[in-house]
Amino acid sequence: MTLNIGVIGTGMIGQDHIRRCHFALSGAQIVAVNDINPEQARKVVQDLGIEAEVYVSGHELIDAANVDAILVTSWGPSHEEFVLSAIRAGKPVFCEKPLAVTAQGCKNIVEAEMNHGKRLVQVGFMRPYDQGYRALKAVIDQGRIGEPLMLHCAHRNPTVADTYTTEMAIVDTLIHEINALAWLLDDQYVSAQVIYPRKSSQALAHLKDPQIVLLETAKGVRIDVEVFVNCQYGYDIQCEVVGEKGIARLPEPSSVQTRSGARLSTDILMDWKERFIEAYDVELQAFINSVAGGSVQGPSAWDGYTAAVTADACIAAQRSGLIEPIKLPQRPAFYG
Amino acid sequence: MTLNIGVIGTGMIGQDHIRRCHFALSGAQIVAVNDINPEQARKVVQDLGIEAEVYVSGHELIDAANVDAILVTSWGPSHEEFVLSAIRAGKPVFCEKPLAVTAQGCKNIVEAEMNHGKRLVQVGFMRPYDQGYRALKAVIDQGRIGEPLMLHCAHRNPTVADTYTTEMAIVDTLIHEINALAWLLDDQYVSAQVIYPRKSSQALAHLKDPQIVLLETAKGVRIDVEVFVNCQYGYDIQCEVVGEKGIARLPEPSSVQTRSGARLSTDILMDWKERFIEAYDVELQAFINSVAGGSVQGPSAWDGYTAAVTADACIAAQRSGLIEPIKLPQRPAFYG
Amino acid sequence: MTLNIGVIGTGMIGQDHIRRCHFALSGAQIVAVNDINPEQARKVVQDLGIEAEVYVSGHELIDAANVDAILVTSWGPSHEEFVLSAIRAGKPVFCEKPLAVTAQGCKNIVEAEMNHGKRLVQVGFMRPYDQGYRALKAVIDQGRIGEPLMLHCAHRNPTVADTYTTEMAIVDTLIHEINALAWLLDDQYVSAQVIYPRKSSQALAHLKDPQIVLLETAKGVRIDVEVFVNCQYGYDIQCEVVGEKGIARLPEPSSVQTRSGARLSTDILMDWKERFIEAYDVELQAFINSVAGGSVQGPSAWDGYTAAVTADACIAAQRSGLIEPIKLPQRPAFYG
Amino acid sequence: MTLNIGVIGTGMIGQDHIRRCHFALSGAQIVAVNDINPEQARKVVQDLGIEAEVYVSGHELIDAANVDAILVTSWGPSHEEFVLSAIRAGKPVFCEKPLAVTAQGCKNIVEAEMNHGKRLVQVGFMRPYDQGYRALKAVIDQGRIGEPLMLHCAHRNPTVADTYTTEMAIVDTLIHEINALAWLLDDQYVSAQVIYPRKSSQALAHLKDPQIVLLETAKGVRIDVEVFVNCQYGYDIQCEVVGEKGIARLPEPSSVQTRSGARLSTDILMDWKERFIEAYDVELQAFINSVAGGSVQGPSAWDGYTAAVTADACIAAQRSGLIEPIKLPQRPAFYG
Repeated sequence: MTLNIGVIGTGMIGQDHIRRCHFALSGAQIVAVNDINPEQARKVVQDLGIEAEVYVSGHELIDAANVDAILVTSWGPSHEEFVLSAIRAGKPVFCEKPLAVTAQGCKNIVEAEMNHGKRLVQVGFMRPYDQGYRALKAVIDQGRIGEPLMLHCAHRNPTVADTYTTEMAIVDTLIHEINALAWLLDDQYVSAQVIYPRKSSQALAHLKDPQIVLLETAKGVRIDVEVFVNCQYGYDIQCEVVGEKGIARLPEPSSVQTRSGARLSTDILMDWKERFIEAYDVELQAFINSVAGGSVQGPSAWDGYTAAVTADACIAAQRSGLIEPIKLPQRPAFYG
Repeated sequence: MTLNIGVIGTGMIGQDHIRRCHFALSGAQIVAVNDINPEQARKVVQDLGIEAEVYVSGHELIDAANVDAILVTSWGPSHEEFVLSAIRAGKPVFCEKPLAVTAQGCKNIVEAEMNHGKRLVQVGFMRPYDQGYRALKAVIDQGRIGEPLMLHCAHRNPTVADTYTTEMAIVDTLIHEINALAWLLDDQYVSAQVIYPRKSSQALAHLKDPQIVLLETAKGVRIDVEVFVNCQYGYDIQCEVVGEKGIARLPEPSSVQTRSGARLSTDILMDWKERFIEAYDVELQAFINSVAGGSVQGPSAWDGYTAAVTADACIAAQRSGLIEPIKLPQRPAFYG
Repeated sequence: MTLNIGVIGTGMIGQDHIRRCHFALSGAQIVAVNDINPEQARKVVQDLGIEAEVYVSGHELIDAANVDAILVTSWGPSHEEFVLSAIRAGKPVFCEKPLAVTAQGCKNIVEAEMNHGKRLVQVGFMRPYDQGYRALKAVIDQGRIGEPLMLHCAHRNPTVADTYTTEMAIVDTLIHEINALAWLLDDQYVSAQVIYPRKSSQALAHLKDPQIVLLETAKGVRIDVEVFVNCQYGYDIQCEVVGEKGIARLPEPSSVQTRSGARLSTDILMDWKERFIEAYDVELQAFINSVAGGSVQGPSAWDGYTAAVTADACIAAQRSGLIEPIKLPQRPAFYG
Repeated sequence: MTLNIGVIGTGMIGQDHIRRCHFALSGAQIVAVNDINPEQARKVVQDLGIEAEVYVSGHELIDAANVDAILVTSWGPSHEEFVLSAIRAGKPVFCEKPLAVTAQGCKNIVEAEMNHGKRLVQVGFMRPYDQGYRALKAVIDQGRIGEPLMLHCAHRNPTVADTYTTEMAIVDTLIHEINALAWLLDDQYVSAQVIYPRKSSQALAHLKDPQIVLLETAKGVRIDVEVFVNCQYGYDIQCEVVGEKGIARLPEPSSVQTRSGARLSTDILMDWKERFIEAYDVELQAFINSVAGGSVQGPSAWDGYTAAVTADACIAAQRSGLIEPIKLPQRPAFYG
């Protein structure tokens, strides 16, 4: 009962997922691959030594009889059409973020999926599969700190490439907090404000860095997220939940504690890829298992849509300096 | 060369300072005391077994020939007149916070002191004398984290009395951060905003709790201070300074680490009086030493004045929901 | 290229390994099972819903044509004969600890394997597969703390069953440190001493608890291991390596940090099964991968043998109160 | 009611204590000083700007009419005669460690003091005045970890001078643990064993470093103390108490936590003088207060004597490699 998967997009993350399915996870194999550059697809199949058919068309791959489920890991702007195509084919699809590059695109997917009548889409937000975030959510859900009132968060990178823009602080960086914190709180956002602190001299001229994003939820929880992508010292994700009777904090990544050179210290990761590396395995295994179990779970098209709407409001707040409302329809019963 | 001190106000804090001078600190003794209730003053002198004259009038105490310096620890609204009186007498005066109950009152003192031509006043802000804050300032001043860009702070009490009001979150609680953070950054405030998160069910009906105060400094540093006075779990002061190349955090109070009952833990203080108890000794010893050295140092009348103006803006922000400007004149050269 | 595995012994740990192979790991499936109680074997196959033949004889299972490799998870005293049988059949075998219940039994396996001419046996010591121990070893091997000189370790359980004996502190509990620390240091033991501190009133009458075992290695490293199996507060594994220029400490298991009820705390595990749960997966995946790669790796029959000899010396030291020598032949080149 | 103190020995520690009395502590002043080198004594008086008479003879200083109490801070071998002289004069005396350079010398003082009929001597063991050790003792005494069973301790220096010998690891270094741990446990020692781990390549040829000292107490508590005086990384004092139901650990010195350069770290002190600097103030203030209160408290001549006997046994154990008994008479009721 091995799940036969087709992969659209064989760049770095596509290759990672292929490797996962073949060498780390249980119950799945890659039987078909597609890339906008067919040579690239062929090379990946050969290099990884897997037996998979190379399709020139992503849509043909989706429709192939031996393909049970689809991984969309292509260029962001192409996600929407492939996910819609998978829904038309009635096949489960795991789509890396973003679900679509516009809120409207996400909405199109939500509507298609609801018309289909059953969940087919899992969006590649991996933090809900991170052991630390799950432990944090368990502490909250067990009532150990009472009702959450405030979240103090940070998302820091040591440096970013020249191509990184002020808006990418929202759509590439904050987007993970947008998803994870709504999931953590089982809540949704109602307003956003962006504050620009003194700019770091380490940031490129065109970039406003750091930024502080203030989010408000329907339940009144207030969230501050420091986004600081030139912090120099490490890739560091912080999340502190202040509840009515206590505080809970996301665990630091495990590290050997050393005493040396007049310092008692633990290491901080410099490379973001290592931070949630185990969560990617858990996330994709969960997709495989949920498909095998007959019902797709995890971050949904609705979550992708609301993240897109929230990100749009944050960008508006970046530009206006004002508190921007976030208007979201009620979560359909379809999405639980 | 013992400094002869007169104390105005023999309530709890006045008594504490008398005990400090006689039983813990070096180089000073209390020779005169005054209280609005002379019986209380007499009782304190007797109970502590010190030899000090009881004055019915604070002003007469100030003018007494054998009194070298004054401690003002009376009811807040009386501070201004006694400090002004001490300045008129040309005597050093240590005044517990607030320096005066209005910004105008503080300004009157600033002007009187400047007219006198030499610093005489030290205001009783004790955090700059706390070992932890001093260590934090040293880390910043040594450039170990680069230029400060953001401060994430919290001031939490387990509970407060019924008489505590929403405004007191500013004038009684935040006032310590207002003073300490400007000192820490060697900077002053230019705007304030107040955000009300979801209210804790543990807070009394009339009280908005928690609150988040956002302050902006002249150098562009952005500060968020969570004020949460019904947090249940402890008296907890947090201060994290995010710099251009690193982050520094105020030390937790020292505590034995235990492993017991499935928890690895340290104690959190429940009583605010223990948190800065050593700082009070250091603060008053510094006053005694600076008077002996011929020039009053430490938190100045100017610091008291700017704290009052900043607090006024925070209260305006509590009411308006807007970002309120803080308009302060430039720090006179007189105040260094 | 799925590895077909036969499992001998379908008790708790056997079932765990079957589940791992089918639902968590990559590249293996269970095709044959055996148990001293055939009904038990049949029930496990049925309950887990796997397709595997039930063998009444472990030796027949080993010889079955479609069985590529063996997992021995039966009763300890039966390990030796099944491992020897697997070696005779020239098949890779993963044997849960102990490799054999006597040092001589282990030696018999070592000799059989060396006569076979190629490594076939992996012993089920899982700590070398634990992320924390691996990180600790990396810190040592990178020279970050200089040459190791001393290890301070602890192995604590909250409580133990009535059947637990003073000797089991060595053969059931310390045995993990015996293996892991030799691996960590790439060294072997030359003497052992056991000290009995004041007995805990929480320990049963027949049991000496806690105990401190002092081990000395060939390189002169001194190790103290506190074995305390009624420590009440948690299952807690500590390992601190003191090197010539620094100290490294095994990471604590990841946990949410909370502030509540006047305590700043993280959780300590109470159940030993959770402590190394991920290491079991890594360990068995490593076996599968190494068999697929053509050469068995990981804890060897030699490691099983030296652990048995060391444990015997510790038991002698428990009885004599003296420093007992540990006489081991040199590690054969065969074992790297 | 200022206590008039005479100081014998104006080297570094003598000067420190003079400064303490005049500029930090309450209730005492130095009125007389003596040094084996009278010029040195005169220079110290002049440099510190104090009014104190310089005595050429320590015994005359002790007998001076205006001297109420004595501080002995001279060369170790001279301690015994000055303390005996102070006892003869019936004057309270604070004597830096060692009380005498032999156990017999200490015993002579104990007998003289008991003959005098009232405690006069406080020995300069400062750890019982350290805030951290006091907090640790409070945790034990409150029963939070149950009865103590084992102590795991370390005393580490970054480096030592060429003149440091293997024996000094006991008499100069371990002596502090010998005193502090007996106080902590309210217990006394019955045996000692010394183990020599692999020698650090950082230690000078003549020196055995590190050493592990194993102590056993009358109640059966087992203590291991790692003494490592070339550990390179810092001056580090560790003390972990394992009780029947939990573990308590001496607090680390307070330090700002930083995130920088891929490390989350706190500073470790390099200079031993900073580690207990506040304890020296508390210790001497306690002496001043206890004299004022009419009864000398704190570490007693008996404690000095038992520390000397214990140190002698440790040195015997260094030489013999055996478990050496420590034979101590019962603590006289005189010493509480």
